[in-house]
Amino acid sequence: MSARVGRYVRMVATPGDGPALAEGLLKVAEGMRSAPGCELYIVNRTPDEEDAVWVTEVWADEASSDAALNQDLGEAGLGAILPLLAGPPEFIELAPVGGPGLA
Amino acid sequence: MSARVGRYVRMVATPGDGPALAEGLLKVAEGMRSAPGCELYIVNRTPDEEDAVWVTEVWADEASSDAALNQDLGEAGLGAILPLLAGPPEFIELAPVGGPGLA
Repeated sequence: MSARVGRYVRMVATPGDGPALAEGLLKVAEGMRSAPGCELYIVNRTPDEEDAVWVTEVWADEASSDAALNQDLGEAGLGAILPLLAGPPEFIELAPVGGPGLA
Repeated sequence: MSARVGRYVRMVATPGDGPALAEGLLKVAEGMRSAPGCELYIVNRTPDEEDAVWVTEVWADEASSDAALNQDLGEAGLGAILPLLAGPPEFIELAPVGGPGLA
């Protein structure tokens, strides 16, 4: 059995573009509903930072995560959000263990 | 309609106690299955920090989150993990917007 992989991805938009970044990432998230092995892809804003968006990802295994990351950027809708970013995304890599919300 | 609330909680165990902290938090997570409004309570280890554990929480609304936080510590099983912590937990507060994994 392969182990699940997850990550928190923090993206910061150029000033004032936090809402547009969240909208764009929601479209990416909708596309992930059909991605094999995608268990969670939740878009979050944060009350602490107006222009930051966090994405919570959980994948069934490393292979499904890699496949989604290597997907054509335009196909995933990520191309539309790149111009909104103030800098590169930051990642916290996770090894999900269990709990409510995991199948 | 009340808005969902979420958070990432980072806890760091005393050196070598990361696995025990994750085990204790998994027990807390199992108890959360019956907590009203608990949508996610996922325990994660991270390859980047041997003794850190992250918990991904999503609640149906502020009231259900508050009710769980105010639960008796012993009842939730949090009492057992407190002695393992090297310091106070850190929180990133979230406003979940949508995506796969949210009902």
